[in-house]
Order: sequence, then C-alpha cells, then structure tokens
Amino acid sequence: MRPSAELSSAHDKLLFTPGPLTTSLSVKHAMLHDAGSWHFDFNARVKSIRDKLLAVAGLSREAGWEAILLQGSGTFGVEAVFATCVPPNGKVCVLANGAYGERMALMLQRLGIARVVLRTPENIPSDPAALDHTLVADPAVTHVAAVHCETTTGILNPVAEIGQVVKRHGRAYIVDAMSSFGAIPIDFAAAAIDYLISSANKCVEGVPGFSFVLCRREALLACEGFPRSLSLDLLDQLKGFDKNGQFRYTPPTHAILAFEQALNELELEGGVPARGARYRCNHEVLVSGMKQLGFRVYLDPNVQSFIITSFYFPDDPRFSFPEFYRRLSDKGHIIYPGKITRADTFRIGSIGRIFESDTRALLAAVAATVQEMGF
Amino acid sequence: MRPSAELSSAHDKLLFTPGPLTTSLSVKHAMLHDAGSWHFDFNARVKSIRDKLLAVAGLSREAGWEAILLQGSGTFGVEAVFATCVPPNGKVCVLANGAYGERMALMLQRLGIARVVLRTPENIPSDPAALDHTLVADPAVTHVAAVHCETTTGILNPVAEIGQVVKRHGRAYIVDAMSSFGAIPIDFAAAAIDYLISSANKCVEGVPGFSFVLCRREALLACEGFPRSLSLDLLDQLKGFDKNGQFRYTPPTHAILAFEQALNELELEGGVPARGARYRCNHEVLVSGMKQLGFRVYLDPNVQSFIITSFYFPDDPRFSFPEFYRRLSDKGHIIYPGKITRADTFRIGSIGRIFESDTRALLAAVAATVQEMGF
Repeated sequence: MRPSAELSSAHDKLLFTPGPLTTSLSVKHAMLHDAGSWHFDFNARVKSIRDKLLAVAGLSREAGWEAILLQGSGTFGVEAVFATCVPPNGKVCVLANGAYGERMALMLQRLGIARVVLRTPENIPSDPAALDHTLVADPAVTHVAAVHCETTTGILNPVAEIGQVVKRHGRAYIVDAMSSFGAIPIDFAAAAIDYLISSANKCVEGVPGFSFVLCRREALLACEGFPRSLSLDLLDQLKGFDKNGQFRYTPPTHAILAFEQALNELELEGGVPARGARYRCNHEVLVSGMKQLGFRVYLDPNVQSFIITSFYFPDDPRFSFPEFYRRLSDKGHIIYPGKITRADTFRIGSIGRIFESDTRALLAAVAATVQEMGF
Repeated sequence: MRPSAELSSAHDKLLFTPGPLTTSLSVKHAMLHDAGSWHFDFNARVKSIRDKLLAVAGLSREAGWEAILLQGSGTFGVEAVFATCVPPNGKVCVLANGAYGERMALMLQRLGIARVVLRTPENIPSDPAALDHTLVADPAVTHVAAVHCETTTGILNPVAEIGQVVKRHGRAYIVDAMSSFGAIPIDFAAAAIDYLISSANKCVEGVPGFSFVLCRREALLACEGFPRSLSLDLLDQLKGFDKNGQFRYTPPTHAILAFEQALNELELEGGVPARGARYRCNHEVLVSGMKQLGFRVYLDPNVQSFIITSFYFPDDPRFSFPEFYRRLSDKGHIIYPGKITRADTFRIGSIGRIFESDTRALLAAVAATVQEMGF
C-alpha cells in the first residue's frame, strides 16, 4: 500500500541510511501528545504494543514469550541481554563480521564477561561450522551471539543454520536483528532463538528512543541475581511490567505513541512480507540504477541483504565522498558513509518510509551529481 | 511570559506529575521532522544544545565544563556517572531520604561498587554533619552522591552545604538534579559540584528520551579504564562528540529536536529565575487551595520544594485514591500516587507547561471531586 502524499514527510530530506530513518508523517503526528507514564490508558497501549510485537514475530505470550521494551538505542538492548542473562561464570561466543559483532565483544569486555570471538572477513557470512568446532572444544561457552543483518556492509548472516548448531550443543542463542526485524521473516522455532533484539527505529518505522527484546519468560526469570546494571536490568524491567504495566523508569512516551502508530501502519501495509517486498524493490531498483551509473557493489549478491548496500568509491581522483554526500544532501537525499575497515565504500539504505519513486529520485540525483563532479 | 493558547496542548489531559510532563505544542511540533544523526546540520544542533545547557548552569566549555547527552531516562544518566567515574577501588557515600537516593544505592550494588548509605527519614533533609563524620571516619570513600530535590516527597536537600563538606574532605561530588535543574538556580562553584545529572523532560520541558550530565572535562578524561558498561560509558560518549560531533549510538533525534525548542522557550520565558517563579506560583496557589479544601501537606514548609508536593490521604473512609485519581483524570487532570514508605500520600507536581490558571482549574476539579465523593 502506497500511503497518500500527505502521509510522507515531504519537506524533510529523505534518509537512505541504516537509521534514524524517514518515518511517515502520521507516525510523527502521534507524538503531538503528552501521555502520563503512570496513567492506565498509556499502560494499556504499552501492553498492546508488547503483544503486537510478539505477533509480528509469530510468537505469543500464551506460548511463553515476552516482548520487553527498554529505554535507549538498540545497543542498550543488546547490552541489557548480556548484562542480565549471562550467569557470573558464563561465557559468550560472538560471531563477528562487522562493527556490530565487534561492538558485542566490547560490551562483554566492559561487563567483565568471558568471551570468544569467531571472526569472518566483512564480506563473508558467519560460519556455522566454525561455531560447531568451537562449541565442541569449549564447554565453558554458555551463550552464542550473532548479528542477523550486519549493517556495516549489509551482509545477511545465516541465523537459522547458526541457531541449529547452538541448539545441538544446548547453549543459549542471542540474535541482534536490529535492522532486519519487521522486514525479513525470522522463524524463531527453526532458528532456535532465545533472545532477539531490535529497535523502534528500524523496519517497524517508529522513531528512535527505545529497543525491544523478545525472549522466553521462563528463561529470563531464571536470571535472578545475574544483572550487572540496574538501568539495563531486563529481568527487573519485565517485573515492572508484570507488577503494574509500567516502565520502571521514565519511558520515552512520545516515541512509544509513535511506535504504536508505526505498528498499525506495518499491519496496514500487509505485515512483514509486504514491507520486505517494498524494501526489496527499493534495493533492486537502487542496485540496478547504481550499476548503470558505473558504481560497483561491495558484497556478493548471494549474501547481500535488501536492507542496506555498500558501494565502492569510484576509482577516480575526481570523486570525494564529502563532496558527493553534500551535493546529494543539497538535492534532498541523505546517504551514509561506509564503515568497512578494508575498503573505501559508502552505504545507501533501502529501509524506512521510502518507496520505489524515492529511490528513482535518489538515482536521478546521483546521476546529476556524477555529471557535476565529472567522474 | 504566558504563551498563547495555541502553544499549549489544549486537548490532552494536563500532567501534574514529576514527569513525563505537559510540554508546549511548539516543543512537540519540533518532532515532526526526521533528522539524520550523521548529518552536519543535526550535529551542529547537538553542539548548540550542549553549549546552551552549560549556559543555563552558568558554566562554559572555556572554563573546562562539558554537557554530555546520553540516551535513556534520567536513571541511565545517574548510573552512567557511577559506572564511568568511580575507580575500581572507589567507594561512594550516598545521602538518601527517598526512593531516588535508594535507587543510587541499588545501582552501586549492581555495578559492584563499594558504598555506604547515610539515611535520614523521608521528611528530613540529608545531613551535612553526618556526612562530615563519615568522611572523617572512612577514608575509602572517593565520591559523595546526593539528590537535590527528592521527588519521593518533594523535599529539597542542602546540596551546597553538602558540597562544602565534600570539598573540605577532597572527595568528588555527584548531584542528581533531575527535577530541579532549569527551575532552581544551582551555583556549581558554591556547591563544589563535580557531576550533575538531569533529564530532558523535567524543568527544561523537553520530551523524555535522554538525560544529560554536566561535568569537568579533565575529571572525566581521567576515568580511562574505569567504565563498567559500554552503553553507559560517559567518557566514550564524550570522545564520540569530540571526534565527529555525533552520538556513538543512534540518538533519539526527535526528542533532541524537541529539546532544542524547549531550551529556546526557557530562554524566552526569562531563563531559570522566571521558570522557577512560575513553578513557585503554581505550587503556592496549589498548597493554599488544597489547604482550603482540607488537605494537609506532608512536609514542613521549610524543606518543601516548589517542584512537587505530597499531600496526606484525608482521614476519611470515603476517600479512595484510585477513585479520586480517576475522577480527576475524567476532568482532564492527571495527578500522581505517593511514594512515601511511612505515610499514605498522593503527589501533585507544579512543573511542566502548566500555569496558575491550570492549577486553579485543577483545584476546581479537586473541589468538585471532594463533593462527589462526599469526604
């Protein structure tokens, strides 16, 4: 469903980034209200959001699952899972092929949690076979953590295959699905996921302000005594919701009202398959158009997600990323810098309230900019 | 300055709470835009916000101070100071006379930081003389933490006197000024404050979504190696701003745009003195009106702040707080439950985008409700 023109935010530059993203004007309009966080109406809306998130994931409270919202960015949600759920003598095996996997390792270091990092190059998916060897060799590992779509490159990791290995070895499985949840279907049973983290401002198309964790209630309740932080204590956060439906500490009420509207719009669009199809179309139009303009994609198409795409810098001295970026910005389009350590790239996202027509407008702006800069 | 009617949010219930608060419609309107967090325009606005926060506090970057914004609620900001700034062998003395002091003690426990808690009853201010004894007796204490306005009751603690004791003993001083900053003047030099924490959605009248810490740059830079969390690492957050003007992790862009507008409106109103005078007027009208209706204030007037006021439950079997609350809510006014352990109370806040006329409207609603309930 293409929303009518007044639902998109026509006056802002469009964000072709991994987030913050362009959101619909109706999502932003939901923020024009001040809600009391102790008030029963607001708490009923939080409960409804938590239930809807489970439904988006194909899960339910009745089947023992919980959706827990946590203040802060997605990173806070990932760290909260580690800080809360890994026992004092636990050890985490992190599968890393980009900045977000490395960030997990850094969090574990700060939290004083034992860890082992299994790295693949940034253009190679995480390796279930290597994980299998590690889990055989290292019985101390209690948890495995993987990144679904590593937005450093846009690579898609095989979370289901990894999950099957984790399950076979009887360890717990944590998936960072920050930039995929809501657009790429995730089969929790097939992937044997114990904890999945995403955030308000990715494929659900809310505004930034909180993350959420989907997990089994019983598993979380078994973490009593583990939490290494109060703010990031996911178990205490669940107990707060249990007790009176409230966040323990002041929630970002406006971002939550926006998220409620964003979930409604996800449903109206046709749910995860329809949203994924729109993003895939954005991505395919983008890649095809960029190739025609002479740009090369960093990743092999077999491992490339439709979430975000890394392009090599053109091999031309007349290309300068800051100038390229600024000229596109002047034309109303915001792209994103690269984050790859071993190649000069920039990134273009295909997610958020952007459509094929927006992508074609971006391509026209890129074509004009290429001409202006003469590379 | 009383803003014109269209600047207040006429259609929402008014929030007489400690937060989330009622904000102006113009502050909420600032959220109708999607900003790219990597974009130079957004980063320039973040820098301007950080400078303005220092100016509100009578501080400056030139004098060695920094204002650091951190995602999450105010609690995240307080925990970030502890998690970042207390050395591994440090010890914190917490002055507690309410839930927020106790929360500090709980954070320290979770973080594994040694601590001693000096308690006074909830209706008695924290005691500088007791602190003096403790600091003499316990040289292991490296930091002292106090709450300026303890919103559990509304009591105002003597942060300057406490700071003088801390300074005399050469310890570091952390002040939770969550609900006072922006309305009650705080003399950083006189109080010898090293770290002050507040949040977006208190007296600056932004929307909830982040906290901020004001501190000396050199003191924070000396905390290398201390941080016990990545998300709550205040030093790394500062380094991120230093490096490229950006938040390390996705910021709540909409809440930040709202805060920029809120700071402008604070200045337009006449700054901290004018805002404090408006709140004081709200408080005085409230207390006088509630007394006329037969309600009794919990605190002695000498220690009562104008931020929030605790009232005893009427000694009448016909009074029921849930019913009282709901009837006031039906009339468009949201009050707040009590949090005092040893007395049955409810609370009414005087902060946020509310004026004397709103307070009088609340009093009329309370009077009508008293009649309806017949107590």
